[in-house]
Amino acid sequence: MNRQELIKQIKKKGSFLCVGLDTDPDRIPKHLIEEVDPVFSFNKAIIDATADHCVAYKPNLAFYEALGPAGMESLAKTIDYIPEDCFTIADAKRGDIGNTASSYAKTFFETYNFDAVTLAPYMGRDSVDPFLAFEGKWSIILALTSNPSADDFEKLKLSNGDQLFEEVLKQSSQWGNYENIMYVVGATNAAALQKIRKLVPHHFLLVPGVGAQGGSLEEVAKYGLNADIGLLVNSSRGILYASSGEDFADAAKAEAKKLHDQMRKLIP
Amino acid sequence: MNRQELIKQIKKKGSFLCVGLDTDPDRIPKHLIEEVDPVFSFNKAIIDATADHCVAYKPNLAFYEALGPAGMESLAKTIDYIPEDCFTIADAKRGDIGNTASSYAKTFFETYNFDAVTLAPYMGRDSVDPFLAFEGKWSIILALTSNPSADDFEKLKLSNGDQLFEEVLKQSSQWGNYENIMYVVGATNAAALQKIRKLVPHHFLLVPGVGAQGGSLEEVAKYGLNADIGLLVNSSRGILYASSGEDFADAAKAEAKKLHDQMRKLIP
Repeated sequence: MNRQELIKQIKKKGSFLCVGLDTDPDRIPKHLIEEVDPVFSFNKAIIDATADHCVAYKPNLAFYEALGPAGMESLAKTIDYIPEDCFTIADAKRGDIGNTASSYAKTFFETYNFDAVTLAPYMGRDSVDPFLAFEGKWSIILALTSNPSADDFEKLKLSNGDQLFEEVLKQSSQWGNYENIMYVVGATNAAALQKIRKLVPHHFLLVPGVGAQGGSLEEVAKYGLNADIGLLVNSSRGILYASSGEDFADAAKAEAKKLHDQMRKLIP
Repeated sequence: MNRQELIKQIKKKGSFLCVGLDTDPDRIPKHLIEEVDPVFSFNKAIIDATADHCVAYKPNLAFYEALGPAGMESLAKTIDYIPEDCFTIADAKRGDIGNTASSYAKTFFETYNFDAVTLAPYMGRDSVDPFLAFEGKWSIILALTSNPSADDFEKLKLSNGDQLFEEVLKQSSQWGNYENIMYVVGATNAAALQKIRKLVPHHFLLVPGVGAQGGSLEEVAKYGLNADIGLLVNSSRGILYASSGEDFADAAKAEAKKLHDQMRKLIP
């Protein structure tokens, strides 16, 4: 899905919500465990319940990989099931170079046919270029995350006065453009979000950390929205595990709708 | 495998060679393509041919993931097939936090039963701690890599005068110890290797980039060896694809033996 189509979907639905499919077998409602593929059954119900309220789905690879080859089957079925009008993100945070990076790009863009993949920038441009070579696909680069140890390296002050995440934004925004690069930006720091918006005014930002991780949707919208919306705000656990009972899908729908209602008011 | 066992194997075999299983279906000899699982057949032959000459195997996850669920079956069979006395490394370069990091740790340390996994440090301590929680397992953290764009961020000068990779070494060596942390250090920069050895005198270093990527084994040994050897030097393509014909395993053995012979002379 390209930028224009994504913006069109956001405006049509009045939502910039991304639902994170961090499907943890230990947290799936008990009545689903008897199913042939409980992870897919859970995802299917969540997608059916939330598709009217979101514009994107973001499976978190770790949870599928932990289940071995069967988990990757659940992932493949999930991707196939996501409606055509939704943007798909592999939350994989890969970062490698050369033919290894090309193989990861092939994994997410061809084998599983995602629209986008999250990437770690530590190894530099060599670790992103092979993904940008895929026409019509997106690289979503980690910039500033919302975990406490973002202080360890991401916020380190460089000799040129910038913090590392600012340098990552400045350099990496030159490797591609706002039609094939987005950035991961944590929601817990409004001042930083403001700074980031100045550095990359046109890029989409993928913002996790609203809800469970403590970020405010209003603040994110205030500092993050641009003329083309430019935001995908993710919620995972708050939606997936809103209820652990047989009503989990209804509860997930209610949570997604709550965020959708807030977003509708925030979209200019 | 713990540190003492690894050192014992290195001394017993007279080798600190790691064979990288970057098994690319496009480069597998043609006569294997008819097999039920060509990737596993290839790996099995490579392992049989090289096990006397190396102490570790390092499957590169990207190549298995690109093949979908079937690729993960090939990976599982490969891990099962690697002899007990060899150290196993998942070259995965993961980097995420919280329950996602725990799921990745479970993936590599339990689902696939590797001894070690490579990790990217961008998100800080939160992205490594969940791996260190697994007793008897290893985190191998990216420090300085040998690709040209290591200049982009890894070598950036910080306001405290250090380069980023030095800060990564200084901080992360405090998160665990030399019995559960190793570092990835590229082989193409002898001066940097010398600097790194001063910062982490006791840690094992995993060194790719010898051979195909241009590093010299003598230089790596000169600056990298410590009292407990402290080195694993990786070769992937130079061994795997030494021949593209039916003699590929013999050719791989010859290449591994060549490195083994050099290493035997370098071990004090």
